[in-house]
Amino acid sequence: MKKSIHIARRMRHIEPFHVMELLAKARAIEATGGCVVHMEIGEPDFITPQPMVTAGIEALREGFTHYTPAMGLASLREAIANYYLDQYRTVVDPQRIIITPGASGALQLMMGVLINPGDQLLMADPGYPCNRHFLRQYEGEPISVPVTADSGYQLTSALMQQYWGKRCVGALLASPSNPTGTLISTQELQAMVNYTLERDAILIVDEIYHGLIYEGDAQTALALGNNVVVINSFSKYFGMTGWRLGWLIAPEGYIRALEKLAQNIFLAAATPAQYAGLAAFKPEALRILASRRETFRQRRDFLLPALRDMGFDIPVTPQGAFYLYANCERFTQDSYSFAHRLLSEAGVAITPGIDFGRYRSNQHVRFAYTTSIEQLELGVDRLKRFLH
Amino acid sequence: MKKSIHIARRMRHIEPFHVMELLAKARAIEATGGCVVHMEIGEPDFITPQPMVTAGIEALREGFTHYTPAMGLASLREAIANYYLDQYRTVVDPQRIIITPGASGALQLMMGVLINPGDQLLMADPGYPCNRHFLRQYEGEPISVPVTADSGYQLTSALMQQYWGKRCVGALLASPSNPTGTLISTQELQAMVNYTLERDAILIVDEIYHGLIYEGDAQTALALGNNVVVINSFSKYFGMTGWRLGWLIAPEGYIRALEKLAQNIFLAAATPAQYAGLAAFKPEALRILASRRETFRQRRDFLLPALRDMGFDIPVTPQGAFYLYANCERFTQDSYSFAHRLLSEAGVAITPGIDFGRYRSNQHVRFAYTTSIEQLELGVDRLKRFLH
Repeated sequence: MKKSIHIARRMRHIEPFHVMELLAKARAIEATGGCVVHMEIGEPDFITPQPMVTAGIEALREGFTHYTPAMGLASLREAIANYYLDQYRTVVDPQRIIITPGASGALQLMMGVLINPGDQLLMADPGYPCNRHFLRQYEGEPISVPVTADSGYQLTSALMQQYWGKRCVGALLASPSNPTGTLISTQELQAMVNYTLERDAILIVDEIYHGLIYEGDAQTALALGNNVVVINSFSKYFGMTGWRLGWLIAPEGYIRALEKLAQNIFLAAATPAQYAGLAAFKPEALRILASRRETFRQRRDFLLPALRDMGFDIPVTPQGAFYLYANCERFTQDSYSFAHRLLSEAGVAITPGIDFGRYRSNQHVRFAYTTSIEQLELGVDRLKRFLH
Repeated sequence: MKKSIHIARRMRHIEPFHVMELLAKARAIEATGGCVVHMEIGEPDFITPQPMVTAGIEALREGFTHYTPAMGLASLREAIANYYLDQYRTVVDPQRIIITPGASGALQLMMGVLINPGDQLLMADPGYPCNRHFLRQYEGEPISVPVTADSGYQLTSALMQQYWGKRCVGALLASPSNPTGTLISTQELQAMVNYTLERDAILIVDEIYHGLIYEGDAQTALALGNNVVVINSFSKYFGMTGWRLGWLIAPEGYIRALEKLAQNIFLAAATPAQYAGLAAFKPEALRILASRRETFRQRRDFLLPALRDMGFDIPVTPQGAFYLYANCERFTQDSYSFAHRLLSEAGVAITPGIDFGRYRSNQHVRFAYTTSIEQLELGVDRLKRFLH
């Protein structure tokens, strides 16, 4: 039998972002003159800070439009190493730092080098959905571990022990987490490093929201063991989403393979982005970023109690990122329809839980505070009217 | 037994770019005051044309630093559709055009959506090495077809028939080819479209050097059948290598899956690059590109006879790209050592055949005319002294 279109089996397991439908619907409402409060978007509303924009423009003016080495500009790898020294008092050999097209490129590379068909990785449900899709892409099998408020919506060494599979090669964590904004304590992180070390397994830690922590300081997982891979990005904290720039720090034994794969699958991260990224560590940029962090904290401090007052259950106060993951079962058992109705009837866009996993996802929604306090206030007013 | 580093089996089949060692060696020579003629580099020596640079700067000034949709800016997809109309008199629905991070991103997406483990694709040896690595990445099996001067170093429908495998889902062509610069005639291309159509298979055609054709006009494979996927890029002809911008045009039935995979594995191509790309189709940019094409033609017309005179065998006159693939067996049966000696002893960098496959690769080298006529002249003088 002939079939004109061949779609690989892996695509059955790779889901679209459901929020995209909501975003398209929101844009349609706006196109006809309607007004939507956007609390669905997982990117800062701010444009890139001026120092990085200026550095990007300067690089273009100077004609830096050719490929860089696959591992990235040496100067950028060194700047990142210095950042770890300044920020975390952690020494990282720049040779272990690979510049990637966003954290996406970093996950792609690491999974490609690590995962054999059938290999398993533990990850939290809810979590960033692309994580399991990157694994699927390489014929790996995610073990999605249901996590609750009890563990701050994070994996723990106890959960690892409970769910560890025969073909597990490691675990993937994110701290702060998307969608929950919750952190892993340094103590628990150390326990998970130790647990994976004992099993000769790897611990991949997504720290892309690490700059956006509102209480206390978090330690990078990199400082806690030599089986740790860290994923990071210029997108969220540094405000450079559209530039597609991230980095990967891996144990030395992986570097040659990672470089080889990078040469083959993306050649290098975009050159203007890399020059722009160099400016992200300058004092004037860090000052802007600190001020934006304070703005995000204020938004959280407004939105969190407002949602709780309305009856959304947010049992753990999120310490980072720009998300609130709310139990909405007081209002619905079908958060997907709820989000669609909220948009159509009240002009408020949020993300249904289904975008982050399967565990109780129909009873949860994600609010992103990636818009101004004024917009958040408007959103809260509309929500109140919608719910009462 | 514990092993602290886990490297997936696929990495055994994914080779590094051997030329990178030569490039590192060349840089070391230059760092100590030596002078190297670079004929190894597969990217134009020109910086990006001013209209694209200006458009990129303008986009940054306007604050276009957020994500675009996963499929890319609608305006860029439309500009590309218009380019097909102007250039090839071919109507392409912009909905079928996906903007990608370079042609690399396009190959990645297409292979991810198409290839099940064990699936086979025919491809020419010599050819662009990443092609078979993209396939390997998804547990596919490249069938490398040895090609000779007899077929202009290209696949033909006859070769397809000879090598077609049980698990073949299609073939991957490149016209003009890297490393040979040779074209596929429209007639032969049509024969291969028909051959694959009859077998309900797909034909992926890399047209990234299509703008750099020095004699006559080539037809896009897109116009020849509805099972054709075209890969293209702003890198080579448009001179935008470092921006990482390309595109993919696929039959409608693949688009939803491609979009879904793009959302998950790279989110979108870089935003400043997409705005810069919009300027690439403006008359002032196309004038610059036409003038650069003429410069490349002049370089070819200098280097080709010079190499032939020296005793390099280049039986087919390459009509496009910026490469000459030369049989060097009059001088060596080990082109890899030959390239290393040529660099150390004469200060000329070229690429050994091994970077492009296995078939007679030890008897071939690639010369890239991505440097000025003056440098090419110097390179030719040095080669003459080295060889005699």
